[in-house]
Amino acid sequence: MPDTIPLAPPPDAADLLHRRHRVPAAPPPGWNDVLATMLAHRSVRHFRPDPLPAGTLELLVTAAQSASTSSNLQLWSVVAVAEPARKVRLAQLAGQQAFIAQAPLLLVWLADLHRLEALAAARGVAVEGTQFLEEFVVGVVDAALAAQNALTAAESLGLGGVYVGAMRNLPEQVATELALPPHVFAVFGMAIGWPDPAVDGDIKPRLPIEVVLHREQYRAAPDTAEIGRYDTTLHGFQREQGMREVDWTAQCIARVKDAAALRGRDRLRAALRALGFALR
Amino acid sequence: MPDTIPLAPPPDAADLLHRRHRVPAAPPPGWNDVLATMLAHRSVRHFRPDPLPAGTLELLVTAAQSASTSSNLQLWSVVAVAEPARKVRLAQLAGQQAFIAQAPLLLVWLADLHRLEALAAARGVAVEGTQFLEEFVVGVVDAALAAQNALTAAESLGLGGVYVGAMRNLPEQVATELALPPHVFAVFGMAIGWPDPAVDGDIKPRLPIEVVLHREQYRAAPDTAEIGRYDTTLHGFQREQGMREVDWTAQCIARVKDAAALRGRDRLRAALRALGFALR
Repeated sequence: MPDTIPLAPPPDAADLLHRRHRVPAAPPPGWNDVLATMLAHRSVRHFRPDPLPAGTLELLVTAAQSASTSSNLQLWSVVAVAEPARKVRLAQLAGQQAFIAQAPLLLVWLADLHRLEALAAARGVAVEGTQFLEEFVVGVVDAALAAQNALTAAESLGLGGVYVGAMRNLPEQVATELALPPHVFAVFGMAIGWPDPAVDGDIKPRLPIEVVLHREQYRAAPDTAEIGRYDTTLHGFQREQGMREVDWTAQCIARVKDAAALRGRDRLRAALRALGFALR
Repeated sequence: MPDTIPLAPPPDAADLLHRRHRVPAAPPPGWNDVLATMLAHRSVRHFRPDPLPAGTLELLVTAAQSASTSSNLQLWSVVAVAEPARKVRLAQLAGQQAFIAQAPLLLVWLADLHRLEALAAARGVAVEGTQFLEEFVVGVVDAALAAQNALTAAESLGLGGVYVGAMRNLPEQVATELALPPHVFAVFGMAIGWPDPAVDGDIKPRLPIEVVLHREQYRAAPDTAEIGRYDTTLHGFQREQGMREVDWTAQCIARVKDAAALRGRDRLRAALRALGFALR
């Protein structure tokens, strides 16, 4: 195969499991390059200027299409943006984040109810089901499953990337920039490129597994000791990375404190209505 | 490592790419076990009765936690259901699908705004941002990214699984069964187990890549020639699999024709309101 990108040998399982939770890990019941790739995930926001090898975009989208999709409806699409001026404009719409323009490829993942409506209209059928919140959720989930496959695929090739939730800051302007028809919503963006080795963030620790994993039924009260341990773990991580130290719990609370904390996304429902989603 | 599950050797790249789109594929710019695992995905609905090796659940959840999460809020949880009687009851709530009770493990993936609200309440803070549609979308996307990692991880270990969207048929009853507090929503289920080798479905072809991939801007009119080719491709696939032959376009249109076609999920908005989601 031309331009083959070699896969680095898989790091040690115990090391990767430890870096994700910062507690000694039991030996896993299996290990392979797939698990190593996923466990090694970190968001990359600094890219080398080098372009992607020919065929990379198509390979990532094929991986995305290989994800499950509700009833095989395939209610998603993706716009691949590579033109520098368009990336700059989208960066301005999505929180002024410089890495969006710096990355060689910006993927904008869409919940797409339009395609099916257009196919129905071509057969003289008016569909009503796409007006319901349910099909909006199906489109969002379909887009997310596809996107996650694409990012893991990119990482398996040595590329890096990051989700861009700020693509929801100004949904109507994003729709205009990408010429989206009604009933298509840019759920999030994703910047993809070669990680800049000079700026190499580490694997971010997540909540203790027993905080997110419930057995048989939901335990309503979060374990405050476990949460306290995580606050401490993240402080240590922030020190290691030379980041400003902030308490995870306090940071999360601040992020959802009130409408203003949502940085414009408190008007998402109005924006979706303007884009043609009835959300009945 | 005990109970090591061997990874099968990766099938040929050209073969897997062809089976996904049923057209001759250009050589990809890279290939590895990660791509092979994702490209080989098929939904598995028939399971051997064998249990999963010890530690599998924790490994899948660690893979899930390694996925990106908006602002590290981690607005998701998962309930692992293994008790036979509970699986039977959940199967009854989710479209009477027998494989849900047959699988050794049922994962129910949750958009979870409760945990953060409870942490805030413990600090004497009332948060308002979780009342907005935006944070519902964040929870749904977080749950979907996590779930997709878990399914890919399972497949890398030789396990199989399938998403269960019918977990949204009766959201309030599912919430009662799983003791979900307000502001927690079961987005979908996922049945996981060892695939029954006697019932071995093939890789389902997806839409031609140029139908879902847009370059720089959205092309509003779907290419009817490409869609017609896909209808033909799926007819061929259905014949191969001994399935009833149905036109993909007609099947999709029927699935979203009207409120009745949504099989109860047309009341999702009312159900979410009952579960405490204001969706402002």
